Amino acid sequence: MPGSEIDGVRALLTSLPRPDSLAERRERLDAVASVDGVAPDIGFETVEIGGCRAEWSLAPGSDAGKVLLFFHGGGYCSGSIRSHRAMVSEIGRAAKVRTLALGYRLAPENPFPAALDDTTAAFEFLLNDGYPATRIAVGGDSAGGGLSLALMVRLRDSGRPLPACAWLVSPWVDLEMTGASMDGKAAIDPLIHRDYLEQLADNYLAGHDPRDPLVSPLCAELAGLPPILVQVGSAETLLDDAVRIAGRLGAADVATRLEVWPHMIHAWHLWSARLSAGRAATASAGAFVAGHLAG
Amino acid sequence: MPGSEIDGVRALLTSLPRPDSLAERRERLDAVASVDGVAPDIGFETVEIGGCRAEWSLAPGSDAGKVLLFFHGGGYCSGSIRSHRAMVSEIGRAAKVRTLALGYRLAPENPFPAALDDTTAAFEFLLNDGYPATRIAVGGDSAGGGLSLALMVRLRDSGRPLPACAWLVSPWVDLEMTGASMDGKAAIDPLIHRDYLEQLADNYLAGHDPRDPLVSPLCAELAGLPPILVQVGSAETLLDDAVRIAGRLGAADVATRLEVWPHMIHAWHLWSARLSAGRAATASAGAFVAGHLAG
Repeated sequence: MPGSEIDGVRALLTSLPRPDSLAERRERLDAVASVDGVAPDIGFETVEIGGCRAEWSLAPGSDAGKVLLFFHGGGYCSGSIRSHRAMVSEIGRAAKVRTLALGYRLAPENPFPAALDDTTAAFEFLLNDGYPATRIAVGGDSAGGGLSLALMVRLRDSGRPLPACAWLVSPWVDLEMTGASMDGKAAIDPLIHRDYLEQLADNYLAGHDPRDPLVSPLCAELAGLPPILVQVGSAETLLDDAVRIAGRLGAADVATRLEVWPHMIHAWHLWSARLSAGRAATASAGAFVAGHLAG
Repeated sequence: MPGSEIDGVRALLTSLPRPDSLAERRERLDAVASVDGVAPDIGFETVEIGGCRAEWSLAPGSDAGKVLLFFHGGGYCSGSIRSHRAMVSEIGRAAKVRTLALGYRLAPENPFPAALDDTTAAFEFLLNDGYPATRIAVGGDSAGGGLSLALMVRLRDSGRPLPACAWLVSPWVDLEMTGASMDGKAAIDPLIHRDYLEQLADNYLAGHDPRDPLVSPLCAELAGLPPILVQVGSAETLLDDAVRIAGRLGAADVATRLEVWPHMIHAWHLWSARLSAGRAATASAGAFVAGHLAG
């Protein structure tokens, strides 16, 4: 049953509580998100992009001429190629494309705009590598969803080509935390709470304005962006970030699809090996990405 | 091009402006929405349900053992089986199911709860006709979207079986018109404006409280409803009704999908014969309905 499956993930998270130190927090996210490992049939390859480590993945039968560029979550301060390896490689399988996961620079060591600069460099790396923009999708979860939007806003503003579509899971798009679900869902969200987000935002912003559209895309002018799928769980404090950005994207004439998955928690795709709703959401996103990339 | 297609629909609407008298308005909606006729391969059959006329449709290859019960739009005061015949029969084709379109009683002659009572009778008619609830979808556009939600809330509250899923196009769920798009999109919406909605609401309410959850489902407790797809155009004053109800459904742990279609106008599926985005939205909704009905 889906209910008992998500309860199992909740038990896993409870068994590995979030520690206090930054180094331990990073290790904990890597451990808790990679607990089930990756499928044995995926091919991985490391690449360096402007000083950042990145990783290609390719599932059997996928088209290496199309790519999903992925930005992991972790509040701009944690998360890695390792933590999100299963999530990324499985969306590649579902969309039948290659993936490129970017190990962008983290705060507080590297505050805004370091991560955004790294995503921009990775997108340009793909163009230089011969991928036309029409065969590139971007995506990410949590902070990676915010980065995906910020990257597209920046590309649009500088007149550069945009990716063909974007996939945002549980995106964090409001670094002022003004959504009603921030408190309304606090009691049932096992991962994300206001005080934690405030620490992360402080680290990433380092005094920068939280209403800058490139850190809080909820404040951005969004017209001209490509089709976007937003997936979010109903048991998330960030539910209203997803609902509000979908509403703003739609109002700006962006082709927008929002999916709210009952009882799912923040970035639940990470635990798809033990969560049928994670596999179903991955399948839905894969079909979306496949349907928007040029043949 | 999609842009020129929707401009063509806008020109059609401009060529047939909304008249002042109620009778002429009803005739105008029937005429403007049925301008392209229906496909020649659809089979139709009339049936009477509790004094209301209703109409079955069946496309070649569809499964007559599954049904979409449809409630047309028209602000509770106009619209008919005739106006929506093409829209309804084509969603039946896309979902591969039979459809039943209900000619429910209209205001001001029959204010709330007459229309809702008729939808309830039609749902019970299907159960008595042998359709299990797991093989019934409900849906509607505009006021018909509101009626779909109100029906499900009423069925849930009385402990009766619920349909398997629902499809809402440009739903009108807030008879107080408090959405920001009511003014923000007024300049580009060719059909729906605040003063017109206020007339319609006055006729339907006849003094009843507009915040009654059964007339404004945005005010309803929504937990326990089946999966729901909401489709809306970005050029609609009712855009925020769709975004807000999707957010509230999701927050209530209802499996929710919201699609915002760029540049589309209110209930654009009506003009699918000349609008590729109407056909694409119908295909998307058909797949949704087909995926949620029991085999």
